[in-house]
Amino acid sequence: MMAEALPDLIEEIVTDKGPDDIQAVAELLLPAEDVEIATLLESLPVEERISLWEVLPDTRKVDVLVEMRSDPREVLIAAMADEQWSAILADIDAEELLELMDSLPARLIDLAYQALDKQQQAYFRDATQFPDEQVGHWISHEMLVLPLNAKVRDGLRLIRRNVPDHCDTVFLVNRSGHFSAAVKLTRVFGAPEHLPMVELTEESLPVIKGADDATNASFQVQRSGYAALPVVDDSNKLLGRLDVLSASELVNEYYERQVMATAGMDEDEDLFAPVAKSARNRALWLGLNLLTAFLASWFIGLFEATLQQVVALAVLMPVVASMGGIAGSQTLTLIVRGLALGQVTSANLKALMTKELKVGGVNGVIWALVIGVVAFMWFNDPLLGLVICLAIFLNILAAALAGVMLPVILEKLKIDPALSGSVILTTVTDIVGFVAFLGLGSLFLL
Amino acid sequence: MMAEALPDLIEEIVTDKGPDDIQAVAELLLPAEDVEIATLLESLPVEERISLWEVLPDTRKVDVLVEMRSDPREVLIAAMADEQWSAILADIDAEELLELMDSLPARLIDLAYQALDKQQQAYFRDATQFPDEQVGHWISHEMLVLPLNAKVRDGLRLIRRNVPDHCDTVFLVNRSGHFSAAVKLTRVFGAPEHLPMVELTEESLPVIKGADDATNASFQVQRSGYAALPVVDDSNKLLGRLDVLSASELVNEYYERQVMATAGMDEDEDLFAPVAKSARNRALWLGLNLLTAFLASWFIGLFEATLQQVVALAVLMPVVASMGGIAGSQTLTLIVRGLALGQVTSANLKALMTKELKVGGVNGVIWALVIGVVAFMWFNDPLLGLVICLAIFLNILAAALAGVMLPVILEKLKIDPALSGSVILTTVTDIVGFVAFLGLGSLFLL
Repeated sequence: MMAEALPDLIEEIVTDKGPDDIQAVAELLLPAEDVEIATLLESLPVEERISLWEVLPDTRKVDVLVEMRSDPREVLIAAMADEQWSAILADIDAEELLELMDSLPARLIDLAYQALDKQQQAYFRDATQFPDEQVGHWISHEMLVLPLNAKVRDGLRLIRRNVPDHCDTVFLVNRSGHFSAAVKLTRVFGAPEHLPMVELTEESLPVIKGADDATNASFQVQRSGYAALPVVDDSNKLLGRLDVLSASELVNEYYERQVMATAGMDEDEDLFAPVAKSARNRALWLGLNLLTAFLASWFIGLFEATLQQVVALAVLMPVVASMGGIAGSQTLTLIVRGLALGQVTSANLKALMTKELKVGGVNGVIWALVIGVVAFMWFNDPLLGLVICLAIFLNILAAALAGVMLPVILEKLKIDPALSGSVILTTVTDIVGFVAFLGLGSLFLL
Repeated sequence: MMAEALPDLIEEIVTDKGPDDIQAVAELLLPAEDVEIATLLESLPVEERISLWEVLPDTRKVDVLVEMRSDPREVLIAAMADEQWSAILADIDAEELLELMDSLPARLIDLAYQALDKQQQAYFRDATQFPDEQVGHWISHEMLVLPLNAKVRDGLRLIRRNVPDHCDTVFLVNRSGHFSAAVKLTRVFGAPEHLPMVELTEESLPVIKGADDATNASFQVQRSGYAALPVVDDSNKLLGRLDVLSASELVNEYYERQVMATAGMDEDEDLFAPVAKSARNRALWLGLNLLTAFLASWFIGLFEATLQQVVALAVLMPVVASMGGIAGSQTLTLIVRGLALGQVTSANLKALMTKELKVGGVNGVIWALVIGVVAFMWFNDPLLGLVICLAIFLNILAAALAGVMLPVILEKLKIDPALSGSVILTTVTDIVGFVAFLGLGSLFLL
């Protein structure tokens, strides 16, 4: 219902702030999906967000919180008094608690855990044995399971009772709960009632291990053609399943992380984070970049005498730095994606390097000449043109080299290249660019 | 089977290039999924990619091509002689042709179109009436459809015949083919045979319009809880459906586009593009950035006299530019995401601006002081410290302002802010930074 209505609802809440208005919006929201309410809450400044939150029915609060990003969610959690929690947490389940646990203080996790029944408590404990980058942390336990010797008639009975969303197979397990086979629901229907289920086994259904990387496993589910895949532990015991909905959420989070990482933020960043928190989140990244900028300045400082005599060098410095940075970030972005897809390996690294150096060579020559001519004409100095021409060429080659090698090295060191690659890369291209430019300038122009 | 095997296969092909080795790999690939073969082909340098392609069975070639990104795919298409195409295109279907059509020359599209049966030709024509950013271009026609007056017994008969992947509902249409209702397969099974299907209608199932934005519609499918949603035209005629698999592919492409756009590339960029093509793809972005760098240089040039007398200003310029660029890109990234999610609207823009200016104010004061003190100590000049302190503060504020306003303005102008936002932003922060720094320097330090 809401995709188009979102701007209107935001408008209504932000401009007319009376309690009646908020109440009216809350009523409009009753038929909305949880994720839509979550999106609306994330779109509101903190004060309005809390007002709307307070008039939402308690029964929907957990579902909406689950759909929110951590940072905006924590604003709401912090705004609630402890006594309100008992009502809200009363019918939380293990999966919801797992989603929320990073945002909840320990005492509330404990409160919610105590409210779970024995089975849900066991699910919760099982899941927390896997860190959140492993798929075991995110599995669902709503599934259709039958013993290995079940007949089609048992399958039909089970299916008629209840089929969870995004479930297109029945899992067969042996007596110790080990996963043995999966049968498509649609094959059960046509089949004779006395046929053993196992004869309808899907031969090519992939099985996921609980310790598998959550993003990779999610991609596997998305492209498997099945609505969900079974997840097992190391001894092949069936733990649960990962369905396409959870898989899509995990994949979307992965991509959001990539996009936000290019600016040194994480995917949970709140549009309306409290100023102090937001400033703190970003300060680290600014500080890190400041260090690299000072490093570049220090290298420039080595050439103070040259700069004093040839001030045109100072004027043109941004051109040298910019071309290296841009060329390098193009190579870097391509390689980071290749690494994420598993396409960049030691076997094709040399070929990739050769190709990127050639591309850098071509663009290096073209732009070095263009820039050289412009600089020559601007400052009427052919030697200055030559100096910047050489510096640009060298910097674009260095950028290609760094763009290929940096992410590969960072990945080996288990550092996320999507996050830190660009800072280090521009440091390299700034320094190479300034040193080449000012160094050649000292050589030719003094 | 392959995620772990990918590096080994790349290794095998790249290092042992004999025809026997290629043949051996091709045999290893027989049980692999199409998408896995596609990923492997994308990982190979052009020569090896074509060798492997040539030994793949013709029957799999279309399926593999469909899974590839356009650029690496086009390398293979260009390498094939026209006569080979007749065999390969013989059993293509409309959906596959739609996937490939951007990569195929007109004569091959025509060849393939002629090979389609009448119904597939009609599907193809229908889909091409929607541009590829609309969901109508991407729908599937494999679906379960019954007349509005069908009984459960008809439903059971239909389901027992064949259920496509990712299909959990039967669609009911009236006599003119207008979509009327959807019934979950699992509800059909438990129900009495004589019951009209329409009594089992899913009330809350969303319906998508063919002209809806493909990415938004895909998000809607992902979170709907259904395996697929019906797609209708403006008069509510049932066109087809969008399932979670296609939806995930469209969403993943959307995100890849976002990530690649930060470096001015598109998601189809080939890891091993021919050098000329790759250099051409990137040259435009380099050229655009060059213009902005020259613009920044021109502003610096206005202060040549100042730079000549206070060379420390030249040394510290990168610090001013870098801090503005980083602070601005953080705000920009947050706002671009908010726009994409529909969370940033005219109603909360002022609140957002206030918050970002406050965050900028806090970080501006902190880092301006830090940098001011460092500059003072480095060059032993308190006035220089004051000048850079003020310049940094102004630049971080300007960055916050530009970071909020730029993407909003670009979106209004229908320009993708993810692609062009960062270039324009750094131009703004470079110029504001240099002018503030050198201008204040001219004022205080001469």
